[in-house]
Amino acid sequence: MNADKIPDIIIGRLPIYLRALQRLSDKGVQTTSSQDLGERVGISAAQIRKDISQFGEFGKQGTGYSIAFLLERLREILKVDRIWDVALVGAGDMGHALAHYQGFANRGFSIVMVFDNDPKKVGQQVGKFTIKDTNTMVEEIRSAGVKVAMLTVPAAAAQDVADRLVQAGVKAILNYAPVSINVPSEVRVQHIDPATHMQRMTYYL
Amino acid sequence: MNADKIPDIIIGRLPIYLRALQRLSDKGVQTTSSQDLGERVGISAAQIRKDISQFGEFGKQGTGYSIAFLLERLREILKVDRIWDVALVGAGDMGHALAHYQGFANRGFSIVMVFDNDPKKVGQQVGKFTIKDTNTMVEEIRSAGVKVAMLTVPAAAAQDVADRLVQAGVKAILNYAPVSINVPSEVRVQHIDPATHMQRMTYYL
Repeated sequence: MNADKIPDIIIGRLPIYLRALQRLSDKGVQTTSSQDLGERVGISAAQIRKDISQFGEFGKQGTGYSIAFLLERLREILKVDRIWDVALVGAGDMGHALAHYQGFANRGFSIVMVFDNDPKKVGQQVGKFTIKDTNTMVEEIRSAGVKVAMLTVPAAAAQDVADRLVQAGVKAILNYAPVSINVPSEVRVQHIDPATHMQRMTYYL
Repeated sequence: MNADKIPDIIIGRLPIYLRALQRLSDKGVQTTSSQDLGERVGISAAQIRKDISQFGEFGKQGTGYSIAFLLERLREILKVDRIWDVALVGAGDMGHALAHYQGFANRGFSIVMVFDNDPKKVGQQVGKFTIKDTNTMVEEIRSAGVKVAMLTVPAAAAQDVADRLVQAGVKAILNYAPVSINVPSEVRVQHIDPATHMQRMTYYL
């Protein structure tokens, strides 16, 4: 099993399986099948079996998957069997929503610092965080060893902030700014832009 | 050119091209190449040429693409050469952030109504909207002919709200609830869940 050899499209489906399995587990369900899981996530049972089999043997024909075991293995594979500290940059509306977001609990992430470059915001509270000045961002992130960041700054500022996050040692950036950012190949970026997601749907209307 | 024959993965890249072209256009740039565009969006020039050629002839070897023309055609293809009215359901932190979001301007979408089921929120203002009761949602959406919705309700409520959106005639749902939702095959769903996006990156760390 070589991590580099698993296509990214498969990796992209694992968090969806993990989320559905967590939900089943929360309800007290102990086993599931690729058929049942597939109906829950809108992916074919055959695809799910194929994806999961990339990582070893998880279920027996006819008996299904142990949810607890599959959850544990998926968390290991995705490296969310630990908690990643996250730096949030940009304390606008979206930054506030993320700082208050309850959905990271038990999913591997914890926001630990919030930055903004607006002197009027620096020093204010957002949720349990005191907003820090982006001037101190590189030092703070580097000395805390934070590797994951969320970027909720305006498009015009995104590349500059991304450059500084990379300089600070960040290796994964969730980018909410509505613009592509360029980073070295060892740094991962995922984009969340509601307009592009919606444009992908209107094509079919 | 048969819409059904273009793979969805290509459709998914078109909004990224559109966004980058819009940004170039805003800066006053008039032509671009697949090479230049590729560097901006992190996609190979060959892939961009192949994707765009699915929809006809857009540029000549050596002279590049006319940005204005490509913008116009991409907007037509993605059907965002018009403005889609959008219903927002869920006036929590994320709903507030979306109601205030400036990024929809010129990208084909306009939020026109906001719903919540919390009696304490109904009647209050969020941005320029008065929050309406979800009890009236199906009638209001249907009579206004709204086809696009954003769902920012808790996971436990998402399927029920999605069912009612479908009943109201909605054909495209941007789902922020951290759960998969099941809809008829003629309805499109895109999911935005920051935790799944981040889990897709931590795999590589």
